[in-house]
Amino acid sequence: MDIGWEVMTEQGSKSPLFADRLSVEQVEEGHELAPKFDERGLIPVVTTAYASGELLMHGYMNAEALARTIESGEAWYYSRSRQALWHKGATSGLVQKVREMRIDDDQDCVWLRVEVVGDASCHVGYRSCFYRSLPVGETAGQRPVQLQFEEREKTFDPVEVYGDAPNPTQL
Amino acid sequence: MDIGWEVMTEQGSKSPLFADRLSVEQVEEGHELAPKFDERGLIPVVTTAYASGELLMHGYMNAEALARTIESGEAWYYSRSRQALWHKGATSGLVQKVREMRIDDDQDCVWLRVEVVGDASCHVGYRSCFYRSLPVGETAGQRPVQLQFEEREKTFDPVEVYGDAPNPTQL
Repeated sequence: MDIGWEVMTEQGSKSPLFADRLSVEQVEEGHELAPKFDERGLIPVVTTAYASGELLMHGYMNAEALARTIESGEAWYYSRSRQALWHKGATSGLVQKVREMRIDDDQDCVWLRVEVVGDASCHVGYRSCFYRSLPVGETAGQRPVQLQFEEREKTFDPVEVYGDAPNPTQL
Repeated sequence: MDIGWEVMTEQGSKSPLFADRLSVEQVEEGHELAPKFDERGLIPVVTTAYASGELLMHGYMNAEALARTIESGEAWYYSRSRQALWHKGATSGLVQKVREMRIDDDQDCVWLRVEVVGDASCHVGYRSCFYRSLPVGETAGQRPVQLQFEEREKTFDPVEVYGDAPNPTQL
């Protein structure tokens, strides 16, 4: 895919976009982006809908996906199942335009607030990946716990959109 | 700490609350809670404010924390830095009451929508852990990327609340 702009990252977690992590004070109270990648080279990403605040998905970025997201303003992830950089929407058209991007206190998690072309983010066809709720407290009486569907209908037909691409869900 | 209710979990990821993961269809389209724990025995958790939708924190649960959250209606996590089960608010008083709990398509991530006693969730003292934003696209010109504070003032003084407890942030 021709991404149309210069990729600033090197392999690994080094990039001119990122500062080295030197102290707790710098990381928590400072102004420099100094992300922490885990032992797999990944940082978790929480993606919510800009308008509604709904949680759409939870994914991961490697250093290159993070740099591409910052530079392009569109969400890039790292697919653990495919072990590949992943421009969200490249197959489905459901591109996520980043309206706001935040990082947490210890800089080991990214928050994207996005607008989604097509208003869907889940490979199963729902608007949000989190289309089922769990009972908590006294109502959680059944064993195993029984889930309730919170979205009644799928937003799109995954077979039409993804064809016979392998399902990323792993058991 | 006396938790006042029966702990249903065994060690590991087995619990009468959880079904075994048998097929992609069961996991994605079924009604049984069949969570996937990673190679560390953990599942990531996204916690948002029930009223505002704001992302408060990103953490992890082991099987016992997940079971305790379901049964108590208060958020329990697993602290990777302290390597211990963690009843959020036990030290700070900032207990998270779970108003809604969801799970994602492949059941490897939990979403908690909570009300927080004291309206703060971040150990640094801010309301949300995600108190800094990043510029994206053409505005992201500086190297390294410069963060902007989105919360002007801390909600509480962490020294007063946590005393000399070790800071969980790791470099």
